[in-house]
Amino acid sequence: GDLDLLLAAAYVSDAQYNRNVEFETSPQAIRLYYFYNHWTMRAAIYFFIFVDLSLALFEKPALFPLPLLATSLVEVLCLTAFFGRLVHFAKVTPQMVFWKDTKNICVMVTIVLTLIDLIIYGSLEAVNIHSVRWSRVLRPIFVVNFPESRQIRRAFRSIRNTLPDILYVFLLFIFSVLIFSLMALKLFGNRSLKTVDGSPYFTNILEIAFELYILVTTANSPDVMMPAYDFNWWYSLYFITYIIINTYIFMSVFLAVIYNNYRKHLKNEIRKLAYLKRYKMMEAFNFLNVEVGTEFVVTEARWKQLVKVVAPDITSSHMELLLRICDEERKGHVGMVTWLLAFPFPALSQSGVAGVLLAILRLLFLADKMNFLRLADLLNIQVVTINVKTHPLETWMPRVYQSPASLLVRKVVRHRREVGKSSGYAMSDLKKGKASRLSFLLHASWSCSRTPDEMCFLGFFVWAYDVIILINAIFIALDEKNPFISYAEWVFLSLYIIEILLKLYTYEPRTYFGMKQYWNWFDTLIIIAALLASVATATIQSARKYNSQQVLDIVLILRILRLLRVIVSIQRSGSFQGAWGDAATPGLLLQKASSCQPKAPELFLDPRFRVIVTTLINIGPTMLVFGGLILVVYYAFAIIGMEAFHGKIQYLDPNSTAPGALVCGNPALNGSVFARDRYCKNNFNDIASSFIVLIELTVVNQWHDILSEGLALPAQRRGMLGVASRRRGGGVHLGGTDFVPMADGFARVTHQAAKLYFIGFHVVVVILIVNIFIAFILEAFFVAY
Amino acid sequence: GDLDLLLAAAYVSDAQYNRNVEFETSPQAIRLYYFYNHWTMRAAIYFFIFVDLSLALFEKPALFPLPLLATSLVEVLCLTAFFGRLVHFAKVTPQMVFWKDTKNICVMVTIVLTLIDLIIYGSLEAVNIHSVRWSRVLRPIFVVNFPESRQIRRAFRSIRNTLPDILYVFLLFIFSVLIFSLMALKLFGNRSLKTVDGSPYFTNILEIAFELYILVTTANSPDVMMPAYDFNWWYSLYFITYIIINTYIFMSVFLAVIYNNYRKHLKNEIRKLAYLKRYKMMEAFNFLNVEVGTEFVVTEARWKQLVKVVAPDITSSHMELLLRICDEERKGHVGMVTWLLAFPFPALSQSGVAGVLLAILRLLFLADKMNFLRLADLLNIQVVTINVKTHPLETWMPRVYQSPASLLVRKVVRHRREVGKSSGYAMSDLKKGKASRLSFLLHASWSCSRTPDEMCFLGFFVWAYDVIILINAIFIALDEKNPFISYAEWVFLSLYIIEILLKLYTYEPRTYFGMKQYWNWFDTLIIIAALLASVATATIQSARKYNSQQVLDIVLILRILRLLRVIVSIQRSGSFQGAWGDAATPGLLLQKASSCQPKAPELFLDPRFRVIVTTLINIGPTMLVFGGLILVVYYAFAIIGMEAFHGKIQYLDPNSTAPGALVCGNPALNGSVFARDRYCKNNFNDIASSFIVLIELTVVNQWHDILSEGLALPAQRRGMLGVASRRRGGGVHLGGTDFVPMADGFARVTHQAAKLYFIGFHVVVVILIVNIFIAFILEAFFVAY
Ligand code: NA
Repeated sequence: GDLDLLLAAAYVSDAQYNRNVEFETSPQAIRLYYFYNHWTMRAAIYFFIFVDLSLALFEKPALFPLPLLATSLVEVLCLTAFFGRLVHFAKVTPQMVFWKDTKNICVMVTIVLTLIDLIIYGSLEAVNIHSVRWSRVLRPIFVVNFPESRQIRRAFRSIRNTLPDILYVFLLFIFSVLIFSLMALKLFGNRSLKTVDGSPYFTNILEIAFELYILVTTANSPDVMMPAYDFNWWYSLYFITYIIINTYIFMSVFLAVIYNNYRKHLKNEIRKLAYLKRYKMMEAFNFLNVEVGTEFVVTEARWKQLVKVVAPDITSSHMELLLRICDEERKGHVGMVTWLLAFPFPALSQSGVAGVLLAILRLLFLADKMNFLRLADLLNIQVVTINVKTHPLETWMPRVYQSPASLLVRKVVRHRREVGKSSGYAMSDLKKGKASRLSFLLHASWSCSRTPDEMCFLGFFVWAYDVIILINAIFIALDEKNPFISYAEWVFLSLYIIEILLKLYTYEPRTYFGMKQYWNWFDTLIIIAALLASVATATIQSARKYNSQQVLDIVLILRILRLLRVIVSIQRSGSFQGAWGDAATPGLLLQKASSCQPKAPELFLDPRFRVIVTTLINIGPTMLVFGGLILVVYYAFAIIGMEAFHGKIQYLDPNSTAPGALVCGNPALNGSVFARDRYCKNNFNDIASSFIVLIELTVVNQWHDILSEGLALPAQRRGMLGVASRRRGGGVHLGGTDFVPMADGFARVTHQAAKLYFIGFHVVVVILIVNIFIAFILEAFFVAY
Repeated sequence: GDLDLLLAAAYVSDAQYNRNVEFETSPQAIRLYYFYNHWTMRAAIYFFIFVDLSLALFEKPALFPLPLLATSLVEVLCLTAFFGRLVHFAKVTPQMVFWKDTKNICVMVTIVLTLIDLIIYGSLEAVNIHSVRWSRVLRPIFVVNFPESRQIRRAFRSIRNTLPDILYVFLLFIFSVLIFSLMALKLFGNRSLKTVDGSPYFTNILEIAFELYILVTTANSPDVMMPAYDFNWWYSLYFITYIIINTYIFMSVFLAVIYNNYRKHLKNEIRKLAYLKRYKMMEAFNFLNVEVGTEFVVTEARWKQLVKVVAPDITSSHMELLLRICDEERKGHVGMVTWLLAFPFPALSQSGVAGVLLAILRLLFLADKMNFLRLADLLNIQVVTINVKTHPLETWMPRVYQSPASLLVRKVVRHRREVGKSSGYAMSDLKKGKASRLSFLLHASWSCSRTPDEMCFLGFFVWAYDVIILINAIFIALDEKNPFISYAEWVFLSLYIIEILLKLYTYEPRTYFGMKQYWNWFDTLIIIAALLASVATATIQSARKYNSQQVLDIVLILRILRLLRVIVSIQRSGSFQGAWGDAATPGLLLQKASSCQPKAPELFLDPRFRVIVTTLINIGPTMLVFGGLILVVYYAFAIIGMEAFHGKIQYLDPNSTAPGALVCGNPALNGSVFARDRYCKNNFNDIASSFIVLIELTVVNQWHDILSEGLALPAQRRGMLGVASRRRGGGVHLGGTDFVPMADGFARVTHQAAKLYFIGFHVVVVILIVNIFIAFILEAFFVAY
């Protein structure tokens, strides 16, 4: 009945989006489940997560301060939304399943803890006692634990699985560092050597271990070696051995262990996903099938109903086509095997053409199972799309559009081999047998045989514009104040506008600005922006305000980004990727990859170059998952950092006469590397600054100097007694280094805690997450090769 | 006849050592070929290569100066030796082959070029004109091109094969850096921002590109960002984007491309090696075989003759055993298949036991081909060796040695499960059929069933000493001037000596100090050294001279290295590696891996921990190849660096009153980071210093500061006019930064050339070789997992 259809559609939809949610099968629960998965609900929850995280911008220490009451109210609102989402989910899923899922428990506990913290903090604040908003550290839990962030959770699972191995390597590594520290203490400890700022060198085992840990990040190389090296050059061998073992071997072993686990884990996840997908599709099939003869099948009518539910805005011709793929032999129903292997749901999620293509490929794969086709042949097939829409100009003034001059223009502009028009789908150059079998849906209509002359001619337009872009690059590099140069910019702009107009003349505009035609959108937007900006600067030449400058900066960046098109142009020449993303040829065509190669310089025709560029481009989307992962970790560390270090360091204009402008407003930093290098803006005074500091810490360089921010805590206390400069103190030696051992117990504890914060960040972000990132890129290339 | 035997032996020997030399088959040529491969000849050529490379220590700029005549004579001697080796080779190999081999041509051209350079340099020097000894850069060619450095050549081949891919990535990377440079120029160029030392910020595109290139190495992060970030915090986004794309993505892509090529290349090399080995063995077989019945075989007598030639010092019992492996069915001859698969030449190169084991494994593999055994079963087999020698004490005083007290002591000391004695070879727990088939050579004699009590008891001795080592570690960390501590060191020393004596009492001494028992040698040597040093310090307590201090340093390091035994002790528990390297159980035994596990804390019983440690230990030998590779590259760069930069920077004791002691003897460095951080010893004044600077450059950190050494060239010229400080100038601002644009043309060229040297080094060493090193470690772990 209708309920079966709804259930089946829900399963298909779950399979399509890789959802793994157990839901009740009562009509009400299914309707609630539909509502639960509706895009508005998902968007709402993302919005509230975003708002909740953004609160850090407005809470003390704030970038844009808002009263506590306002932020608290917004936070309560967000918590209510999270709770509502949870209640909604509880109504959809069976009670047992809901309470067994740690994700739900996690979210609930976090909501309760946040409320408790809010109440305590609010009441203390009311009586003017300032406490710590510790529950803010928990906010990333909402990002991770809602079912929508499946991929971030997968990344965390991957990290969790790697932890035992990482722990073993880490133990060995720490053991090695300690052995070396002990050696250093014995070798250098009683030589009364001095560091460059006059403090004793390598006399305390903990400090040695910390310095050697920093050496692993290379941040204090070669400074840490110099006093010993100056004393006797044989001692450099100690440091070289240390660097080989710990910086090179151990850091590579971390990567190796993470990479191997990542790969193992990835395989398991893919296997699980494939299993779940098939399982969900089987469930859907079981709800809809009827017995016909000896086998269970889904009737055509039922199938159409289902597709209408899963993708309400599908065109009937598109659906007809999909059906032909699923019910190839026109039996009037879909069997189980075809259902599982060729259900066209990617066709529904991806832009029509790509989906149909995938479905066809899957069908061919199915045919392979039936011994009609070999997979190896399929891999040789390249897919090109054919323009099926008629240009509006052809409808309005066919005679002009088809005139010889117009044809010539269009021929020049088309930078790809000309493709004949065809309705439906075309496939050429497949082995006989197969072609005839598939001919009902694929009929050849295109030939790629072409004289070399014509090929050369076809490339002209693209190469002309590549050259123009390169000349433009040189002009951008030159001084724009020269009137000739700024005049030239107008010429380039006109050329680019002409290019776009010509393309719109040649290609069908709706196709040119199709859904997936990112590069065309990119081109056009950049040029329109540049046009607007140039007009703006020309008219309000004198009124160059700060705000308009920011806009101009963005336009300038866009103008330079235009140069990226050279890469795209190289990449497109003859590659699958290029043909696929090219607006000139929508439609569908299967073609042997080797049969027709356009001209391009030898270097870039090397398939390896294209593999590299394609892999680089394909890496893009997954980067977003890493963005989420990094955000979660950074947010937690930023909140902790802000609580611990905010206000210690101030950025004051160094040209101002304010006292302490040159020492970041903290006399303890007098003579420190931190102040000398003007790192004052690297502080934890608001969430934006904190994120930037954390990025700098991820890059690792100078992190021991940035760390002096943490160390400035005890230094500040020492500041009462005198000015102390602990680290390599630059030109100004103010003595007072003897204060360090005198630092009181509390300061010492804070000092050590600051080190732990930075080491913890290093282990989590640099050793774990950055290595997972590298592993991901390694794997992407491994698969591509 | 005899010639056939010699020929066959030469082929077998070539197969054994993976040599790929085509040689003439005349009796004289074969004898010459034997002489060519003789270890004395190989040692001599290595010696001359070593001497030739070492000349850099004595030539100007010298660590130990020698007159030009002396070094030139030695060099001519070396060249003569190289030429002699080449002539020898030419007599062995066919003319055509010799002249087609680029290696030989390379060596000859290098010899000629070196002679020409020597003559020119010598004659110019005679008339007091100082020129450049450019041919010294070519010396590493001798290291690479003699047939003895096969593995280094393989590494270079691997690099060469990677070059096209690397080039593509490098082009994309440079394109990206240039795009970003252009953007930076436009964004920051006309903001009149200043760097921390007051020089203009980001105004010249080449300087921007260079700074951004450095940012890829992270060396100038976050300094390069600070002026823009101070101006407007939005600009930090520019740098963050740059770091993500270029530092993270592109650097990972370099690794990915190198790793993939390395792996592909490795597979090909191994395939080629296996093919060559089989080919050589076939050739040998063809020289010796006779027709018996329907097949060609090698008779037992002939086989024995051959083994005697290949390994003259083999014992007859060893040979009899090898024959039993090759002629399993006692037919009196060896067939072709057995010959190819089971020829025991590794038995001859590796220490007897390992070789025989490999031969047996190969035989089992052969049996697999005959469907007797499955490879999967073989992989489950673990190999343990059994003590076959009788302890001398047992011979001298059997009653005492076998007394209950003595047995108890030996039981406690044995840290491994007790292994029964057996002559011959034993194999247990294999599936029936196979065991019976192989029983003539393997007979089970060992049972691993043991009560938990006993297991616990057995571990006691090892764990007791692990605890002692850890306590010792704490005592080492404490102040040794405390008389109690120095007394404790005597106690520890006594305990260690007792340990060694007990082990020598329990285990057969010749076995304990066997060929491959590195750890036992290591233990004993460290303890004897510590004993000697302690006695020495106790007797000449007052006469602590500088020289004796150096010796004490080494002893101290050895004493601390003793702590490494904890890892070994963990590693040994129950692992294949452990059993293999353990003196307690020489002999041979095949045993199911899972059948008997000793006790150890859960953490370390995890096989993954052992895999990690084992892989780390196995990486060791191949590191030597990288050592060779690095040496070759470093040597060339060191020579160039010495020619370009020697004498520019002097290390003067900073406490001395010598003028310029604080500015490395070069007034141009006044106020530079280089002088401020006391990098004066980081100079190119001799080959040892150059190597250390190059290692620092490999670590990458602060390389732009070290680079100021290169930049000090123009600065020195500017020094005539005034004191200029180009880079972040520290506390002392002396102005003069406006001199930079005024620097004359020549200085500017030198300045740019210095940059090219450092960038070239970075590309070759950091991007290529370090990544190959990481790829090698990744692959080692990939294979181990
Ligand atoms: Na660094």
